[in-house]
Amino acid sequence: MPEIALGQLAEKLGARLLRGNPERRVGRLAGLMEAESGDLSFLANPAYQKFLAVTRAGAALVGPAISADASPAALLQVDNPDLAFAQAALLISPPPPPPPPGIHPAAVVSGQASLGRDVAIGAGAVVEDGAAIGDRTILFPQTYVGAGARLGEDCLLYPGVKIYHGVSVGSRCIFHAGAVVGSDGFGYAWTGKGYFKIPQVGTVAIEDEVEIGANACVDRARFGETRIGRGTKLDNLVQIAHNVKLGPCCAFAAQVGVAGSASIGAGVQMGGQAAAAGHINLGDGLTILGKSAASKSIPGREAGMGAEKLVWFGIPAKPMPEYLDEMRNLKALGRLRRMMKTLEARIRELENK
Amino acid sequence: MPEIALGQLAEKLGARLLRGNPERRVGRLAGLMEAESGDLSFLANPAYQKFLAVTRAGAALVGPAISADASPAALLQVDNPDLAFAQAALLISPPPPPPPPGIHPAAVVSGQASLGRDVAIGAGAVVEDGAAIGDRTILFPQTYVGAGARLGEDCLLYPGVKIYHGVSVGSRCIFHAGAVVGSDGFGYAWTGKGYFKIPQVGTVAIEDEVEIGANACVDRARFGETRIGRGTKLDNLVQIAHNVKLGPCCAFAAQVGVAGSASIGAGVQMGGQAAAAGHINLGDGLTILGKSAASKSIPGREAGMGAEKLVWFGIPAKPMPEYLDEMRNLKALGRLRRMMKTLEARIRELENK
Amino acid sequence: MPEIALGQLAEKLGARLLRGNPERRVGRLAGLMEAESGDLSFLANPAYQKFLAVTRAGAALVGPAISADASPAALLQVDNPDLAFAQAALLISPPPPPPPPGIHPAAVVSGQASLGRDVAIGAGAVVEDGAAIGDRTILFPQTYVGAGARLGEDCLLYPGVKIYHGVSVGSRCIFHAGAVVGSDGFGYAWTGKGYFKIPQVGTVAIEDEVEIGANACVDRARFGETRIGRGTKLDNLVQIAHNVKLGPCCAFAAQVGVAGSASIGAGVQMGGQAAAAGHINLGDGLTILGKSAASKSIPGREAGMGAEKLVWFGIPAKPMPEYLDEMRNLKALGRLRRMMKTLEARIRELENK
Repeated sequence: MPEIALGQLAEKLGARLLRGNPERRVGRLAGLMEAESGDLSFLANPAYQKFLAVTRAGAALVGPAISADASPAALLQVDNPDLAFAQAALLISPPPPPPPPGIHPAAVVSGQASLGRDVAIGAGAVVEDGAAIGDRTILFPQTYVGAGARLGEDCLLYPGVKIYHGVSVGSRCIFHAGAVVGSDGFGYAWTGKGYFKIPQVGTVAIEDEVEIGANACVDRARFGETRIGRGTKLDNLVQIAHNVKLGPCCAFAAQVGVAGSASIGAGVQMGGQAAAAGHINLGDGLTILGKSAASKSIPGREAGMGAEKLVWFGIPAKPMPEYLDEMRNLKALGRLRRMMKTLEARIRELENK
Repeated sequence: MPEIALGQLAEKLGARLLRGNPERRVGRLAGLMEAESGDLSFLANPAYQKFLAVTRAGAALVGPAISADASPAALLQVDNPDLAFAQAALLISPPPPPPPPGIHPAAVVSGQASLGRDVAIGAGAVVEDGAAIGDRTILFPQTYVGAGARLGEDCLLYPGVKIYHGVSVGSRCIFHAGAVVGSDGFGYAWTGKGYFKIPQVGTVAIEDEVEIGANACVDRARFGETRIGRGTKLDNLVQIAHNVKLGPCCAFAAQVGVAGSASIGAGVQMGGQAAAAGHINLGDGLTILGKSAASKSIPGREAGMGAEKLVWFGIPAKPMPEYLDEMRNLKALGRLRRMMKTLEARIRELENK
Repeated sequence: MPEIALGQLAEKLGARLLRGNPERRVGRLAGLMEAESGDLSFLANPAYQKFLAVTRAGAALVGPAISADASPAALLQVDNPDLAFAQAALLISPPPPPPPPGIHPAAVVSGQASLGRDVAIGAGAVVEDGAAIGDRTILFPQTYVGAGARLGEDCLLYPGVKIYHGVSVGSRCIFHAGAVVGSDGFGYAWTGKGYFKIPQVGTVAIEDEVEIGANACVDRARFGETRIGRGTKLDNLVQIAHNVKLGPCCAFAAQVGVAGSASIGAGVQMGGQAAAAGHINLGDGLTILGKSAASKSIPGREAGMGAEKLVWFGIPAKPMPEYLDEMRNLKALGRLRRMMKTLEARIRELENK
């Protein structure tokens, strides 16, 4: 990995070299406790500040509140250490070069597909009739782009990604291995004797800069479309059902499930294994904590909800303060039962007077 | 998409044209609130009846209880609007034509495999020795059918489906992208020093008309078989462990998990992310609501259970009325604590008299 | 399947033939209630002992506590019937022979990859530059081994497994269909306007004898490594996030999720759909029951915790005795409310005296 001098790094990141020699070089990224003298580390979470004083890192990115004597390491001060560390990573540990443009001889690309400039298509990839692939988009080996599907520019499809027919994807999207977009929604009409499959004749629209995790699934709509908003990020094994609408800049951790026709606002966060019921609305800026189930519509920032109304937890989910109240009451319950017994005895005594 | 006249549509669906011109044509499917004048919509859920009065749809399918003046749209009356709309979808928005019969030159089909008539096998698909593929079954690209596996007629395997060796599949089954059938059950014997893998020498039997969602998994049995009953539908990312038996016409929403050797009756429904513990029996007609965990055997319709005993919720799951009782009690708890304090004060006063 | 005489079977398993003719042959494995006269069965779970008396099995493996008159079947006594039955399975129902060594002409193996002896690489598999595959390792069709990834000896990658670039895998590991190892961790820095992707420049290290289930996902580290300890077993659809460390001999059932940077000790078990929060430590020997969420660090055997402190349940998880207390209190709540009313009436009566 390329080494970089702290002075040069500070310049590229717009950082202030709070402490340390600008000629010193770092060439690896590491956490504060694992870092060695040639490494760059960072402090974003205040809970880890104690590690800053004892780190063996060569240098660390820190926020505005940190003073020069807080660490033996060289310190680069920035507004957002998390972001600066991510930018530094691109300089110090650039990802492996993507497959070079070109179509591998073992790829199968329809003559009816349209390819932009500098597209890379790996071995075993299949691109069907009428599909359109934007400039510089990379299909790793064993990916599938169905008939009439459209991918924008600079997308990255890791091995084994499956995009069904007719799906539309914006630019700069990333799909991890095994992700599936455009499978049929789960819909059946009961005939009295069995399930009649409801044709899922809609599609999926994925806006720009969406990232979808490994083996995650996004179903096509019954009619109309399932939509994932610009800049939204879905972790591995997430399920987005048919006709769901996700707003921009949502972030859903692994194994989240969103049921059919739910409509989710902007900037909504869901923790791991959380769920949203079908046909509900979740407002802007809500956080549904891990393991929770949003079972009904919840208004968010767009309705003027304050911070204490934006974080929900439980099955079904309730606002955090309400949940904490309930937990306190529950904890008091054993004491309450004992107290009840005492009161009963005191009453009996009074009665027997 | 092909347009169709309402008169003709009524005839095909066995509908009564309650209101509107039989010559009028519709050519797209849409929800009541999204529909335009050229669209067909429908009302199945009474909660949406208010939308019927204001829809801009050209026509709507409605149930028996709706009167002709309920909507500005043309109305086609049927017994089951959900089913009729699904049937209409096949007329108006037929799915894209399946890949034509034939073996793609980039498919790898064993000379020891047996193929029925009009089978389609896409690029990169692999069919191993001794596998048998029934008439008109379609293997999309990149699918895998292991040694000795048998697929019936008219099955549809979307890209990337993996069927392990020896698995048996009925007719008219659908597998979505990335679904895996026949992977080893999760079984180990503890030797005192580590886990010894228990060979999973059984198989999986999938009956007719089963649909399995994207990236869902069905494990092979330790011995004997894992079985999925006729007409059962599994959504994306569902996990069916080894030796599980599912009855006919079950419907499990996304991310459901059924642990090893559980035995599930007919027509059981499980909501998203619900679970059933291993080695339990779930009776016919039960509904385990989303997020819940059926932790013990539960009798169903076959044991004469009434409707109020068929719907279960919670972790561990309890019958819905019991759960609601518990919630009511929990809600009263804060009040109970305050009341207790008041009573204590009143007793103290009596004692001090 | 090959038949084997009970005398020979006893010798191979180190069993004592408690009852029955050593010449008798068995040739199939089955549960006690499904077995026929030519089958071998076993009793490991005492709950099933009643079935031993009525089984039609030809023979059964039993533990030390069983007497010769407990069953009409021939009985082979061993210390660990579960383990012995697994060993017997390898004799009686050996798994289908693996693909023979060699590179299928439809595989795409980089000239820059290094292959050990007797490696088998199936059709459609892709091995990238700089990858190293150990002796006798088997890549089923449609698998992917990224640039610079290293697999040890005797590994088994079922169809569709995706190993990203740079990942390191030990020997004797098994990956089921669709498993993904090395996808990017879920990490973004908020810029005020959107999410900036944090490069995930670390890797994944998988030690020897690990088994990973179908469609399970293990993310690469942000920096450093995600590590799965020797002999650990992960079931289908499990999610292991970036920078997680799993100790040796853990066993996680299907759909478990472990969030980023969690550190898990040796021999930890997690039930289906359980979760561990990010950045926590779980000590040795803990059991997190199914559906539960370990939300904070929990000490285990290494800290001297006794059995009653090792099993946790609930959301958030608590030690089992604490959970059971809470449930008892909750159950008493309805009674408590009624009792409160009675006390109030008695006090009123005293006050009115």
